[in-house]
Amino acid sequence: MKNNVIVGQSGGPTAVINCSLAGVYATAMANPRMGKVLGMRNGVQGLLERRVIDMSEHLRRDMDLEVLKRTPSSFLGSCRYKLPNPEQNEDVFAKLFAILNELDVGYFFYIGGNDSMDTIMKLCTYGEKIGSSIRFIGVPKTIDNDLAVTDSSPGFGSAAKYVATTTKELILDAQVYNNGAVTIVEAMGRNTGWLTAASALSAGSDSAGPDLIFLPEIPFDMDDFLDKVALLSQSHSPTIIVSEGIKLADGRYVSELGRDNISADAFGHIQLTGTAAYLAAQVKNKLGAKTRAIEFSIMQRCAAHIQSANDAAGAYAVGAHAVRAASDGETNRVIIINRLNSNPYAFETCAMEIVKMANIEKTVPLSWIASTKDYVTQDYINYALPLIQGEVAPFYVDGTPRHIRSATHALSTHNRP
Amino acid sequence: MKNNVIVGQSGGPTAVINCSLAGVYATAMANPRMGKVLGMRNGVQGLLERRVIDMSEHLRRDMDLEVLKRTPSSFLGSCRYKLPNPEQNEDVFAKLFAILNELDVGYFFYIGGNDSMDTIMKLCTYGEKIGSSIRFIGVPKTIDNDLAVTDSSPGFGSAAKYVATTTKELILDAQVYNNGAVTIVEAMGRNTGWLTAASALSAGSDSAGPDLIFLPEIPFDMDDFLDKVALLSQSHSPTIIVSEGIKLADGRYVSELGRDNISADAFGHIQLTGTAAYLAAQVKNKLGAKTRAIEFSIMQRCAAHIQSANDAAGAYAVGAHAVRAASDGETNRVIIINRLNSNPYAFETCAMEIVKMANIEKTVPLSWIASTKDYVTQDYINYALPLIQGEVAPFYVDGTPRHIRSATHALSTHNRP
Repeated sequence: MKNNVIVGQSGGPTAVINCSLAGVYATAMANPRMGKVLGMRNGVQGLLERRVIDMSEHLRRDMDLEVLKRTPSSFLGSCRYKLPNPEQNEDVFAKLFAILNELDVGYFFYIGGNDSMDTIMKLCTYGEKIGSSIRFIGVPKTIDNDLAVTDSSPGFGSAAKYVATTTKELILDAQVYNNGAVTIVEAMGRNTGWLTAASALSAGSDSAGPDLIFLPEIPFDMDDFLDKVALLSQSHSPTIIVSEGIKLADGRYVSELGRDNISADAFGHIQLTGTAAYLAAQVKNKLGAKTRAIEFSIMQRCAAHIQSANDAAGAYAVGAHAVRAASDGETNRVIIINRLNSNPYAFETCAMEIVKMANIEKTVPLSWIASTKDYVTQDYINYALPLIQGEVAPFYVDGTPRHIRSATHALSTHNRP
Repeated sequence: MKNNVIVGQSGGPTAVINCSLAGVYATAMANPRMGKVLGMRNGVQGLLERRVIDMSEHLRRDMDLEVLKRTPSSFLGSCRYKLPNPEQNEDVFAKLFAILNELDVGYFFYIGGNDSMDTIMKLCTYGEKIGSSIRFIGVPKTIDNDLAVTDSSPGFGSAAKYVATTTKELILDAQVYNNGAVTIVEAMGRNTGWLTAASALSAGSDSAGPDLIFLPEIPFDMDDFLDKVALLSQSHSPTIIVSEGIKLADGRYVSELGRDNISADAFGHIQLTGTAAYLAAQVKNKLGAKTRAIEFSIMQRCAAHIQSANDAAGAYAVGAHAVRAASDGETNRVIIINRLNSNPYAFETCAMEIVKMANIEKTVPLSWIASTKDYVTQDYINYALPLIQGEVAPFYVDGTPRHIRSATHALSTHNRP
């Protein structure tokens, strides 16, 4: 008897999270042991509400799969739902397994970050306890690149390509007036500076790259920052890239300094924005310089029109390997990327115990940060440069890239002319 | 005797302003009557300081010209220098003409917006008065699309393609959680909504497009806005696009409402930002909804990696025509785009009296704004859609688009690992 497959997406989207979904879908559809491929809407939160789709109804042609791979955001929708500890609350787990059994699910795939790996571990632990035969495999994704064990996190390479390309464009724009204006750009990265550091990849024979890069791995020194900016703005119009999560030595986030209230999400993560705006205000007030504060905001995770081909290939491969691993009887695993070579870039995928990734955060090695604390070293560049290589041609229709229609939301007819 | 050519760029850059520069350069170099092609650094401001380059020293190969066309920002640098009235201050004009004569300039091209056309008119008027034979031709550019007479402003199509594509990506991302969050996105447009309205071009069979679009042509009604947002966020997670320059009926900018001080540039234009942030705070406080405020910021004018092919062609063509017009003896003219057909798009370029463009601002026709005051009509879409068609392949090297090295700034060696 064939068992069905179920797949979900969790946490923040990436530009290639749907490549992983495509990898799971196409590989499962081709597996003779596997039945339908079901999709949870909005992750386990939607599963608890029995919001499930048959993916083949949304992906009818080969071409749909190619469009899906080029579509940003999470096709199935996402959630930030944190499962309780099974010891404290068994009800949720009992309900989830009842629904999975009702749906004849034998294989469970969850595409997410380290929080999502925690979800899989808990489900797997509970499943073993009740003697369930459902196999659980994690498929990693995050633009933050903070996942342990894997060489890189699928989603990072495309976000890094966006950051490097956009930084390169902004540096040119910043130099257009001859006025010593200071441009401060904010990239995502709560506790890790992987993505912010990717701004250094803009440097080459045609660009000097940013003037300064500040990562959250190193305490931020406001006086040192202002001194450096004052010096730089005497000779040109500097561009400075900061992570949203930079903190003072006393542990306060820079973004907190000008604010009253801070909100936290379900995992207790503080929502950070405004770091660049705060620093720009400091530069303006203390140095009298003209400033611009820019946030890469949501664009850095959804700019699928500038996917990295190497990243897209990695994202697809971890999805495909997850299905093969489950078919081979593995469970409680996450699929990782193992780099074989940097130039030319080559990688393999491997199944790894999920406990090695769940809830662990990988930061930028301190040895990859310049001794001046305001740039990255060649080691970082050697590591990251292969991950932004190669382009995936978007399918342009009427001037914009074609996407697959969202499974989670019907097209609104509001306001169509 | 051959006279030299001089060309400058002024005002805010666009993603294709260097296509116009390439059009001037290549056409002038091929013209047997014309000598060297000189470039003013930072427009007339740099010219007054004799900061001039020989462009052939920077564009040595055919390939350099192709890279220049794909390079954002103003290759020559820009300025926002406003020439005085010749009646009030002749000194500046006398100095400029002395420098131009010293450089053997016979042909003067200035790539800019309606302020720059004012500069050309003044130079031309003074030149006629002193019996100068220098010919002055304006080459239009602006992402704002607010230039009169021309069907579209070179630079608008690429910015519109960025806005349409990015809006489409953001709408998908906004829907990822099932939580009624409100995304408010701010596009440039001080007094005209052309670029903000381009967000409507994201709509198609794969996207509903934004829920609401607010342009500065129509007074903004805060209560009406909050009522509409409250209704929309009951059914899904709406995405709303606003122009930076929307104003209340009493004339106050929305961006002013939460602020103390406003700065103005040399032309008296107020620098606007924070419209989306202010509206998001209102939505959060009054409706209790989760919100995100996003600014397209400088990216919308410098994202050369997503140039519109039709826009790039138009930008090149107006530059090339400017040189032909000057060669044919015309002066005090601006080159405009005249649309011949929309589908397929076809255009011709024409020389027009510059007084018809200088200092005039073309707004979105009120008949192209929906009667609900929160969207554009099919007429706008029919107008704008051809302008974002076609792609120009960036030349990717090491994962980022290759640019021509800036003429205005040497590569810094600061911080290279």
